[in-house]
Amino acid sequence: MQAAILTFDGLTVLDAIGPYEVMRSVPGWEVRFVAPEAGEQRADSGSLGLVADHSLEEVGQPDIVLVPGGPGNRALLDDERVLGWLQASDRHTRWTTSVCTGSLVLGAAGLLDGKRATSHWLYLGRLVEFGAEPVRERVVVDGKTVTAAGVSAGIDMALRLVALEAGDEVAQAVQLAIEYDPQPPFEAGSPDAAPPEIVSVVRGAAARDDDWLRRASEAG
Amino acid sequence: MQAAILTFDGLTVLDAIGPYEVMRSVPGWEVRFVAPEAGEQRADSGSLGLVADHSLEEVGQPDIVLVPGGPGNRALLDDERVLGWLQASDRHTRWTTSVCTGSLVLGAAGLLDGKRATSHWLYLGRLVEFGAEPVRERVVVDGKTVTAAGVSAGIDMALRLVALEAGDEVAQAVQLAIEYDPQPPFEAGSPDAAPPEIVSVVRGAAARDDDWLRRASEAG
Repeated sequence: MQAAILTFDGLTVLDAIGPYEVMRSVPGWEVRFVAPEAGEQRADSGSLGLVADHSLEEVGQPDIVLVPGGPGNRALLDDERVLGWLQASDRHTRWTTSVCTGSLVLGAAGLLDGKRATSHWLYLGRLVEFGAEPVRERVVVDGKTVTAAGVSAGIDMALRLVALEAGDEVAQAVQLAIEYDPQPPFEAGSPDAAPPEIVSVVRGAAARDDDWLRRASEAG
Repeated sequence: MQAAILTFDGLTVLDAIGPYEVMRSVPGWEVRFVAPEAGEQRADSGSLGLVADHSLEEVGQPDIVLVPGGPGNRALLDDERVLGWLQASDRHTRWTTSVCTGSLVLGAAGLLDGKRATSHWLYLGRLVEFGAEPVRERVVVDGKTVTAAGVSAGIDMALRLVALEAGDEVAQAVQLAIEYDPQPPFEAGSPDAAPPEIVSVVRGAAARDDDWLRRASEAG
């Protein structure tokens, strides 16, 4: 099993690294980091780089494609080379997947048309622009298209994928190997669970940081 | 608040990236990746690199030091430069922390002597070699020394740190921003929760992959 994780300048690193750590723990699975140009891609924070060893053209026909989120992926929404690579890859994948706002890139490639899909809760409504049906669930499986909610949801998605492909016992072994026994200190991980004032704070901070989200908020 | 995350060839990337993503989301917090030599550090899988922008000497006196795990950190256990940096940093930190087998490096630096601490469940017993009291909890706080269990536990640890330093509301906002509403597909994330046969599989696979663990198992 070959997985290809798309990277780019301005990615949210945990979106990519959560599923990477799960998938690379499966015996026989290989995870490759790809980018339009191989080499260092800067995180959205600016404070570290991820090195993608492969350009898009080098990875052949991956069995799994994963698109992470991050402000840097706005530039991919009209990047014909990346969208063309996703379309071509999707014809051969077993699973075409995204984490967080990575689903918007799948949408821009026309791969979510008529499908149920999810995204980071702040951006979920934008999926309708791509003909998708937004679903507020942590992991949404529609045929071979699998989308995850924000950032940390990629861990749960990848464990689901491993279970679907390699069976429950392998997925359980991976979960134990990465000691994924989450104990979040608060009930605040989703807009339904978090106190309303916390939801407002995050919504406001995101809109201030993100021109794209602010325009959408002002428009909507 | 300045955090420094130690990196090295052969690190387990999620150990570092989980807490990074939490801490870098706090307004005013800066997270720096450091290494004995700045530049690219290869993941334990070999399939990607992380770029540390700073050498150890460049980061001054960080408020938070974090040591991740991974097979590559065995080489740090007698690396006087790294251990000396940890000892010197610890004199000024607000929090000295680790994820997974990173606690063994803190131990080798003499920073866990007489303290309660945790590690990846496979390696927990080794903490006694450094005078620590092994504790099977997800996050262990002993004074300013905070250790987390395996791999994914760094997310929970970092949220605890943010709550302690910046307050519950900021930690909740970060948890919501990274949509940390974990929904693991199985009850298999700890050796107590996982089916015994899964524990045996992971223990066996780890011992085959890890000379260090195999020798310990054979000796013990």
